Amino acid sequence: MASNVYNGLEKIVPATMADVVEVKLREYLKNKPFLPGDALPTEAELAEALGVSRNVLREALSRLRMLGMIESKKKRGMVLTKPDILGAFEKVLDPLIIDKDTLQDIFELRLVLEMGLADLLFLRKTDKDVAELEAIAKAEKYDSGKQFRIKSEIEFHGKLYEMTGNNTLKRFQSMLLPIFGYVVTLEKKKIAGKVNHLDLVQILKKGTKDDFKKGMYEHLKPHFDRLKELE
Amino acid sequence: MASNVYNGLEKIVPATMADVVEVKLREYLKNKPFLPGDALPTEAELAEALGVSRNVLREALSRLRMLGMIESKKKRGMVLTKPDILGAFEKVLDPLIIDKDTLQDIFELRLVLEMGLADLLFLRKTDKDVAELEAIAKAEKYDSGKQFRIKSEIEFHGKLYEMTGNNTLKRFQSMLLPIFGYVVTLEKKKIAGKVNHLDLVQILKKGTKDDFKKGMYEHLKPHFDRLKELE
Repeated sequence: MASNVYNGLEKIVPATMADVVEVKLREYLKNKPFLPGDALPTEAELAEALGVSRNVLREALSRLRMLGMIESKKKRGMVLTKPDILGAFEKVLDPLIIDKDTLQDIFELRLVLEMGLADLLFLRKTDKDVAELEAIAKAEKYDSGKQFRIKSEIEFHGKLYEMTGNNTLKRFQSMLLPIFGYVVTLEKKKIAGKVNHLDLVQILKKGTKDDFKKGMYEHLKPHFDRLKELE
Repeated sequence: MASNVYNGLEKIVPATMADVVEVKLREYLKNKPFLPGDALPTEAELAEALGVSRNVLREALSRLRMLGMIESKKKRGMVLTKPDILGAFEKVLDPLIIDKDTLQDIFELRLVLEMGLADLLFLRKTDKDVAELEAIAKAEKYDSGKQFRIKSEIEFHGKLYEMTGNNTLKRFQSMLLPIFGYVVTLEKKKIAGKVNHLDLVQILKKGTKDDFKKGMYEHLKPHFDRLKELE
């Protein structure tokens, strides 16, 4: 019976029924006073309430599960979870499947984040953090190959984001880094600003927030210059 | 037959089979030289190649459809699309279903973006843009209610992001704004920096990029001060 419903949908507009049910379920979860960990009605109850087949309901539930909004627990059935706001985003964030304009947008987005993080950084940095960042910068070899440079870029800038004390920001940027790396590999020549990682560490140790903002701009300047050329 | 497969899965670990198929399909789409618009193998072919039931395959395909990686076209069947990298993210980005720590993280993320966008802004702003921004700022009434202030905040800052010429950034921030608005409604008193929207417009007209960076910091300073208090 359930598979008949599917067959019928297939011939008209596939997935539309699941789309409708998905939207209804999301609305339902938002508007009801459920808390993370609360048990939800059973599949049978939800299917009946919505007047849809179990198969369609399951397809919609599967999407919510992928979004991290619900999870299935042994014995307790489905429960509401804290949604993983970056999880689904992460799945499509691959340089090979993103079009060129969006890649460029994301590259710029990372420049914006780097330029903007000084305030949080100076609010929350600790001596221990700065020492760890210095160790990363000192371990870098500037005459090494592209792959190694990308790896140390990731380590250094990843640590900077970590020092902002903002987990979402840190995770977001670590998702953006492969894209940044990919765009860098497309560049024809090696790009290095006047201010390097060790200079930035010195500013964090002895300089002001405004010094850091200027230093970061100099560090990223070759990228901004390239954007200017593209205008 | 297909529904028997489902029933069996249900009793062990629901959705795991779809998870596996989803991952395999994503890998397959990335590694094959498909371009957006290319037709994909049929459901029957994919199900056979993967050795899974049509139902499981459909569940996995439904997720890819939700992520915007594939779409169904009349007559041509499934085709590869440009993935909508922010689409899935948007679905879970609702203040009412996000936990408090993540809300605070996102609030800070927006501050970081605002502080960092001056470089793109000065690279790409046009006189027409600045005039439109000025019209928005002049239409604001500072003595009006909270809802109106949030609306004009959204309009003014939304226009700033638009002026960066980066569509992903613009869409990303418009997704973050409801969260920003929500956090603002939680604040007990009205918060206003020394530099208001009209001042920022004047800087864009006559000032330098560094003036704008300082102005934006002053504009957002009450928020940064509040973060300092929370440390």
